[in-house]
Amino acid sequence: MLKTMSTYFVRTLREDPADAEVASHKLLVRAGYVRRAAPGIYTWMPLGLRTLRKVAQVVREEMDAIGCDEVEFPALLPAEPYQATNRWEEYGDNLFRLKDRRDNDYLLAPTHEEMFTLLVKDLYSSYKDLPSMLYQIQTKYRDEARPRAGIIRGREFCMKDAYSFDVDDEGLDRSYELQRQAYQKIFSRLGLPFVICQAMSGAMGGSRSEEFLFPCDIGEDTFVVSDGGYAANAEAVTTVAPETKPYDDIPAAEMRYTPDAHTIASLVEYSNANFPREDGREWTAADTLKAFMVAAIHPDGHREVILVGVPGDRDVDMKRLEASLGLEVEMATEEDLKAYPSIVPGFTGPTCAGPDHPDRVVGEDGTISGSPRSLVDPRVVEGTEWIAGAGKEGHHLYHLVAGRDFRVDGTIEAAEIVDGDPAPDGSGPLRTARGIEIGHIFQLGRKYAKALDLKVLDQNGKSQVVTMGSYGIGVSRVMAALAEANHDDKGLAWPVNIAPFHVYVASMGKSEEGLNAARAIAEELSERGVDVLFDDRKKVSAGVKFADAELLGMPYAIVVGRGLADGLVEVRGRRSGDKQDVAVGDVVELVAGYVGE
Amino acid sequence: MLKTMSTYFVRTLREDPADAEVASHKLLVRAGYVRRAAPGIYTWMPLGLRTLRKVAQVVREEMDAIGCDEVEFPALLPAEPYQATNRWEEYGDNLFRLKDRRDNDYLLAPTHEEMFTLLVKDLYSSYKDLPSMLYQIQTKYRDEARPRAGIIRGREFCMKDAYSFDVDDEGLDRSYELQRQAYQKIFSRLGLPFVICQAMSGAMGGSRSEEFLFPCDIGEDTFVVSDGGYAANAEAVTTVAPETKPYDDIPAAEMRYTPDAHTIASLVEYSNANFPREDGREWTAADTLKAFMVAAIHPDGHREVILVGVPGDRDVDMKRLEASLGLEVEMATEEDLKAYPSIVPGFTGPTCAGPDHPDRVVGEDGTISGSPRSLVDPRVVEGTEWIAGAGKEGHHLYHLVAGRDFRVDGTIEAAEIVDGDPAPDGSGPLRTARGIEIGHIFQLGRKYAKALDLKVLDQNGKSQVVTMGSYGIGVSRVMAALAEANHDDKGLAWPVNIAPFHVYVASMGKSEEGLNAARAIAEELSERGVDVLFDDRKKVSAGVKFADAELLGMPYAIVVGRGLADGLVEVRGRRSGDKQDVAVGDVVELVAGYVGE
Repeated sequence: MLKTMSTYFVRTLREDPADAEVASHKLLVRAGYVRRAAPGIYTWMPLGLRTLRKVAQVVREEMDAIGCDEVEFPALLPAEPYQATNRWEEYGDNLFRLKDRRDNDYLLAPTHEEMFTLLVKDLYSSYKDLPSMLYQIQTKYRDEARPRAGIIRGREFCMKDAYSFDVDDEGLDRSYELQRQAYQKIFSRLGLPFVICQAMSGAMGGSRSEEFLFPCDIGEDTFVVSDGGYAANAEAVTTVAPETKPYDDIPAAEMRYTPDAHTIASLVEYSNANFPREDGREWTAADTLKAFMVAAIHPDGHREVILVGVPGDRDVDMKRLEASLGLEVEMATEEDLKAYPSIVPGFTGPTCAGPDHPDRVVGEDGTISGSPRSLVDPRVVEGTEWIAGAGKEGHHLYHLVAGRDFRVDGTIEAAEIVDGDPAPDGSGPLRTARGIEIGHIFQLGRKYAKALDLKVLDQNGKSQVVTMGSYGIGVSRVMAALAEANHDDKGLAWPVNIAPFHVYVASMGKSEEGLNAARAIAEELSERGVDVLFDDRKKVSAGVKFADAELLGMPYAIVVGRGLADGLVEVRGRRSGDKQDVAVGDVVELVAGYVGE
Repeated sequence: MLKTMSTYFVRTLREDPADAEVASHKLLVRAGYVRRAAPGIYTWMPLGLRTLRKVAQVVREEMDAIGCDEVEFPALLPAEPYQATNRWEEYGDNLFRLKDRRDNDYLLAPTHEEMFTLLVKDLYSSYKDLPSMLYQIQTKYRDEARPRAGIIRGREFCMKDAYSFDVDDEGLDRSYELQRQAYQKIFSRLGLPFVICQAMSGAMGGSRSEEFLFPCDIGEDTFVVSDGGYAANAEAVTTVAPETKPYDDIPAAEMRYTPDAHTIASLVEYSNANFPREDGREWTAADTLKAFMVAAIHPDGHREVILVGVPGDRDVDMKRLEASLGLEVEMATEEDLKAYPSIVPGFTGPTCAGPDHPDRVVGEDGTISGSPRSLVDPRVVEGTEWIAGAGKEGHHLYHLVAGRDFRVDGTIEAAEIVDGDPAPDGSGPLRTARGIEIGHIFQLGRKYAKALDLKVLDQNGKSQVVTMGSYGIGVSRVMAALAEANHDDKGLAWPVNIAPFHVYVASMGKSEEGLNAARAIAEELSERGVDVLFDDRKKVSAGVKFADAELLGMPYAIVVGRGLADGLVEVRGRRSGDKQDVAVGDVVELVAGYVGE
């Protein structure tokens, strides 16, 4: 049915909402697409709902095309399956929990791994039933600490989550590849630029893990790219370690008095002033080895103190450190350090901990105590020379050589990535960029199937744990990303295939004749299957109508104005900015052709 | 894309689910349409989801056709708006309540009156913005004490709720009529028989209220109908009161000793044995007036004791009584009655309470105390003669005449409706029937607009409270009703417009030739836009395929069997039971015509 502005439930706003910082948030609210109901919880207005449905339909079609069957799980779920996989606890405050009238525990599902696993277990029992792929497009809940940027990070949101079920790893690889290709098609059809980033599979236990990011300055996710095509999450980047070096010519390590050199900057300054290098090169931060004392929190609550060493010209990236350890990490507190007298804050170095430290005790079962583990950046290879804390107030060690003067418990990816770092695949220097995560595919492996006992009989009649993949797209977030990608300072500017309406038809004058001509065009287009929004408002000025048309963002506008006297109407392309005068008799055919109807 | 049984996520079950009592529940689970996730909470399997969507689409199209705009509210909502209307408390245990990480109160919405009201208040301010109608098709939550019959009464369910907003009562009447007509179209298009029943508007405060019921023996709702077209909820039926009668010839009331006449039956028997009527007619239960002592619970918790009198041949219908009073009602307890010594359980009559009772005290503000209110069936008109309890152990009063020997505080619709009672509109005798409530339309009036301060300026610049209507359809319940209406003992039998697939194509033999012929037919139909489910399973017997085809319930089946040698395939109509042999070359055209593609 033809929708008319005089009755359609849309009101544009002149002011940006007070809590909005990013363009998509501002415009989607101002143009009447969404409206805030509570922090991170939005109402879909008619325009927004139409757009969301079109985005979801593209996702649905590509899932169907790879033989992925659509189901829909409840959002309200009993706690038991999530307790079985421990996610009931692990999710912490992010999980909305509630009780029913019989005092049973329920949750609002953040994702549905458990339920998909149990459903397949319920109905399938043989390798002949596999492979299988299932998905849903459904409302999800996460009690985010900081809901942000409108529908980009909400507490109630629309997500497509798909899962694959295979009897062996090769099958999982095939399913993963099918989904990966479907994702590329989806984002291509939506016209949304994307980068496929290697991601950490992390605690989930599988092997391959990739994120689809829409590159965008307001994105929350940092990733790195090279000109040669490498892209990865900062967490997933591996450091290119240099070759080990001979160190025969390096003088013996020497402890020097470095009063007040509590920072790398002051250490470098003091060193250049008091201990200049013989070859005249200045000392730089890169010559120093910075030691961070952190506490890694194990699942049982144990706080393990660790010495993390990185070149002094880099900071520790806590996210990379946490991803590497697979544990939550905090800076070590005074309390944490009480047990380790060798650690002297401000003057700690690799000789203060590690396998060679006299306090180190290795138990019969291999457990380490006495001296903390020492983990250093992969660039700290044998033969590299460093200035580092001496473990004595006001002192540093010079000419400290890795492998000669200290050994470590291992390397760790903890240093921040800096523009210019080499890509691990040799594809050139890296640069950091920001993006919005719009999709994530990863190999779950057998974690959920094991926890919930999903097995099938293989060809030999042997029971096999099923291996799974998980494939998510934030559908409502993708719509926000599309708004980020398709707007200017006047408003939204949707591509045809996701615009809520294809064409905005308006009469700019106040004459009945103009209004009737506009209505005839709108009705004719509508009958041809074109989605038309007809601005039939009589007491609204041309200026307001133009501004609304640009704010609302339909790809084409047909404007009936003074040219009507000469049999002409104007056709405007919202995205191209083109304007052309077209004969009234030709406009329907022309615009229907533009929108493909 | 063509869906094939070998890969499609459907498994039929031979056994009825243990908790299922009604046909739709059994069949929808056995045929793999839905699956229980928790009590009253269901997962939509691929077949069920397709069917639900088709039902929802019919509802959507008819809402759109009357200019009702679609929105979608969150399911997770802050408590404040529901506290403002008092529903946060009133909903009691039926409301799922929870807290977020900041300890704020939230709920899972059972309906969205508050949110719609606030949204319109947010955007509209003038009579020129009205009338407006909005709807959503959305997941709702009610923590039912007794979830029942699968998706007929669930705790998470899909509902269409629409609301109208008008500046005056005439506008509300117009909006109500538009929705009423749309409802008739919806259920007609779905092919679902329905009865429009007058319902109590009850505590909601509006005037018109009608329920759409699907007449069905397993329905939870009782309603009454007459051959002349009257239909109403039992609660909404008004009793046809007889004319008042002269009572000059009736002897004076007389107290008689009636030992052991604690029940109406024993009273009648004792009366006929000991006090036969002079004209020889037997006493019957209809000659007695039964008094029930009940406690009506007021919103402030006060338990008001009331004497309810009904003819002795009828029971009190507690639902009717509660609806009439607009209060929750319990039988009065000994404790309740302690304050009223005139009430003698088993021997209470209308002279034990009411306005003429010596214990009655009327306060200056009109409040009543001392003697309970006495409310009687409308049939107890002036001049009617009764046998009733005398308020003295072992005694009844005979020849007790209403208006002469006792007066009451008022009449009340509390007696059960009995088959043969006259319809209030004179359209003939009533009979009771059962049904499933599939829709409810009612005039909310200004209750929510007042509570949430939704006002607009009228033509004179005066602020007016908006008047609202509320229009619901239980979409998932309608699907269950459709399954009740469309099945036989072998399985489901969907009409074309809501069947998940139009046609089931199967090859019954094991030959490659048969399979290929069936596949070619399936693909050709699919390309023509027909929804086809292709049974390509190779190791499944013809018997199982036939049984599955009948259980799954697609309207047409094309069976490739032995006739293929003669160039024939069989076309079966699931609903008609017809079978016909059709030339292979003609079958696509024929069946595409049947399904309208």
